[in-house]
Amino acid sequence: MAEVVDVRARVLAANEEAAAQLRRDFSESGALVLNLISSPGSGKTTLLEATVRALGGRLRLAGIEGDIATERDADRLRALGIPAVQILTGGACHLDARQVRKVIDEAHLPGFDILFIENVGNLICPTSYDLGEDFKVALVSVTEGDDKPFKYPAIFARAGVTVVTKVDLLPHVTFDLAAVKEQLASLNPTGKVVLTSARTGEGIPDWCALLEQSLAVKRKAMA
Amino acid sequence: MAEVVDVRARVLAANEEAAAQLRRDFSESGALVLNLISSPGSGKTTLLEATVRALGGRLRLAGIEGDIATERDADRLRALGIPAVQILTGGACHLDARQVRKVIDEAHLPGFDILFIENVGNLICPTSYDLGEDFKVALVSVTEGDDKPFKYPAIFARAGVTVVTKVDLLPHVTFDLAAVKEQLASLNPTGKVVLTSARTGEGIPDWCALLEQSLAVKRKAMA
Repeated sequence: MAEVVDVRARVLAANEEAAAQLRRDFSESGALVLNLISSPGSGKTTLLEATVRALGGRLRLAGIEGDIATERDADRLRALGIPAVQILTGGACHLDARQVRKVIDEAHLPGFDILFIENVGNLICPTSYDLGEDFKVALVSVTEGDDKPFKYPAIFARAGVTVVTKVDLLPHVTFDLAAVKEQLASLNPTGKVVLTSARTGEGIPDWCALLEQSLAVKRKAMA
Repeated sequence: MAEVVDVRARVLAANEEAAAQLRRDFSESGALVLNLISSPGSGKTTLLEATVRALGGRLRLAGIEGDIATERDADRLRALGIPAVQILTGGACHLDARQVRKVIDEAHLPGFDILFIENVGNLICPTSYDLGEDFKVALVSVTEGDDKPFKYPAIFARAGVTVVTKVDLLPHVTFDLAAVKEQLASLNPTGKVVLTSARTGEGIPDWCALLEQSLAVKRKAMA
């Protein structure tokens, strides 16, 4: 259906333009912006909670939470004292740059060093929509099976960082971590991989160090 | 964007027509057809493997597997001796009725009592596309968190059966089963809920009994 393809191309082009403007604005303000993408239930909000607990004292953090329904994820971040805005997509399976623009323009988020944009839980649709982020973060939990990078290659190929979550459950599931690392290396040779458990705290310092280093590199490049 | 809405409405209308024809054809042949929908990694293929082991001796089973990439899921079913066809969607986040039609017309699947259509791993997009099934089966694993029905209400409201998978992991995760059952009852008062672990076999007999009973009810209604 060529008609569908045309409309989709125009929607994506409009999104690219809005994303480019967001990227310029985020860079001017010296903020690092991440776009977190995974299946529902891979642990995006839980990773952010652990991140706030570890970094909230020394960096200004903020969140934009994308969901089909419920304010639950923004509530979880606000409960930890960081500003968070929920975007309800009304059925759409991804956030787009104009929704993020509207939040930035209207929601009066206070100044932030790092903005976490948590996309709608979906490994497919969010992949094509640039939100002006510095890089995408893909999450995959060890309970989802070790075939996921090759089954959903687009997001794992484009993610600056892949976080393998829930590693505390490795003793209880069948999950070949080496195979997943090989798939990731093949799809995305320059992407970083971090192993975490929000429950035990394993890997959270590595993840936070990576965030602080990325922020420092960005600010140095702009100075 | 009214234009997008128009195109989407036409795509959905064409799908409805193809699905209605499929439903007539499936009913004429006396087959039960299920459309399995969940996040990536909730255990759709693993549930089907357990089902084939339990029922394959006395019913003719077949599978259609939807994925973005890889033939892996169809291979897993074929390895158990049941006919399975892989549909690669080329990036689309759901199967549609015309893809199923094409498989039925061209793939020369042998006669089946139950056809399992395993949709692309996604809790959102597949919800709107009728595939001519008797009912949708939604899966949610206990590792995904106990907020999922309310966060993805459309699929859980429409599923004839919700299968809660990986219950063997309940001792190792935070998951309020009663809360999930309440969400499901509120969204879908007539839907059935089955708890399973493909690893321990728990609940697989209940699931298989439900399938056999649904097949018997359908055949009786047609007799």
